[in-house]
Amino acid sequence: MTGSPSTRHRPTRRLPGTADEHAHAWSPAEARSRFRAGLSGPTAGWAPGHTQANLISVPADWAYDMLLFCQRNPKACPVLDVTDAGSPATVLAEGADLRTDLPRYRVWEHGELVEEPTDVVAHWRKDLVSFLIGCSFTFEGALVGAGVPMRHIEQGRNVSMYVTNRQCRPAGRLRGPMVVSMRPVPPEHLPAAIRETSLLPAVHGSPVYCGDPGALGIEDLGRPDFGDPVDMEPDDIPVFWACGVTPQAAVMASRPPFAITHAPGQMFLTDARDEQYRVA
Amino acid sequence: MTGSPSTRHRPTRRLPGTADEHAHAWSPAEARSRFRAGLSGPTAGWAPGHTQANLISVPADWAYDMLLFCQRNPKACPVLDVTDAGSPATVLAEGADLRTDLPRYRVWEHGELVEEPTDVVAHWRKDLVSFLIGCSFTFEGALVGAGVPMRHIEQGRNVSMYVTNRQCRPAGRLRGPMVVSMRPVPPEHLPAAIRETSLLPAVHGSPVYCGDPGALGIEDLGRPDFGDPVDMEPDDIPVFWACGVTPQAAVMASRPPFAITHAPGQMFLTDARDEQYRVA
Repeated sequence: MTGSPSTRHRPTRRLPGTADEHAHAWSPAEARSRFRAGLSGPTAGWAPGHTQANLISVPADWAYDMLLFCQRNPKACPVLDVTDAGSPATVLAEGADLRTDLPRYRVWEHGELVEEPTDVVAHWRKDLVSFLIGCSFTFEGALVGAGVPMRHIEQGRNVSMYVTNRQCRPAGRLRGPMVVSMRPVPPEHLPAAIRETSLLPAVHGSPVYCGDPGALGIEDLGRPDFGDPVDMEPDDIPVFWACGVTPQAAVMASRPPFAITHAPGQMFLTDARDEQYRVA
Repeated sequence: MTGSPSTRHRPTRRLPGTADEHAHAWSPAEARSRFRAGLSGPTAGWAPGHTQANLISVPADWAYDMLLFCQRNPKACPVLDVTDAGSPATVLAEGADLRTDLPRYRVWEHGELVEEPTDVVAHWRKDLVSFLIGCSFTFEGALVGAGVPMRHIEQGRNVSMYVTNRQCRPAGRLRGPMVVSMRPVPPEHLPAAIRETSLLPAVHGSPVYCGDPGALGIEDLGRPDFGDPVDMEPDDIPVFWACGVTPQAAVMASRPPFAITHAPGQMFLTDARDEQYRVA
């Protein structure tokens, strides 16, 4: 039905947290400026073709443990950039300020979530080292391009994320379970979903599991640990990718004195292009 | 001519540093035990199907800078494992001892090469953190499998390595030029060479350059900075891959008080299989 009036002229769906129906089409810089001004909401489907990133900022004293944790768990924590201590700047987005330019943050003290502000200027510390970690939203463009339906975007919801029974390889004081994102995939699209994401190892790469959620210790797909429940079509297979919320789960389990993260699903929009992370 | 008597019964070529014509076929554990006993020499073509690794050990005080340097220069320095401080053990090879199990080492003081022993038991320190970094020898199996001739193995030589005019992205106190390995590739095999290595990002991935060595600041292919000169056939194109000797060049440029590395071309043979690092 490509090109039929009903698809050609379908209005852009309004997004959670915004009344602007053109928000999807904003450039990363334009989106960041709106977030800086206070706009918030999930970013799946935003700034198509541009790489989105998870944020975790920890005191410099914890930076080696975090970097090693990422190295030892590369599918969950593929590192795209690490800042110098105290700097809110990143090579991934010229002029961006990591303290203000995400839609929403989480502030953690001793592993407890204490606040969910839309900026962290008042919480910033000179010893914070920030990690920008690949996000599965980045590969959604490739999946859509290969014809794989994205149920959560169709339904205007945040992707479903779950804590699994798989433990990450610990690093120093950091340990915790692997978190996964789940997308329902029709069986006929499964090969494309696996092929496309395999070629993007810097943004989680191939799925860690397809099928029975119980194998990952997930009891009820309808009750995600982060994000929204997403409706599945009858034949859909749940496909699980390692998720950049994993460092947040490590913060909850390992209780560093202080940390700042993005709010799940509300990512940092970089100026990098998804294609830069494609290996073939 | 597959299966002709001349190829089927061609004897295994003798290797530099060993009189044993079956050395190529040793398991990684067997090879490590021979190296532990004092055998040395380049390891290209050894233990086919098993992953080889570069070694760099630095004091814990320098470990964060080194890990960040690797993260910021992933094509040259893809990290396969990082040890706990002082430990000579790695998850990549059960029972291996990083102090004895490489063919030959280099010991560095303030950026100067002071010794090239076959073990570093006497040089070991309790604060040394060891980095095992992907090696291009790992993708040679895939190249041979795809029909790409490996001139340096045919000629019984170490691969040619060159310091380039490209600077790595610095990290803390570490800086230095990118080092590349070069393989002459016949034009008809260039697509396969690029395709096969692109799928192995953990062992340097796709080439950084193909063709004119001058573009990388290399004046004379016949005078490599590390390894041996390798003869090219008339139509061969020089193809350059980022090389795990890059951290050694960073040691030379940045002068940490102490470091231990492998000797170029004389790698650590892990028990990991090359296939584990293939993304698709």
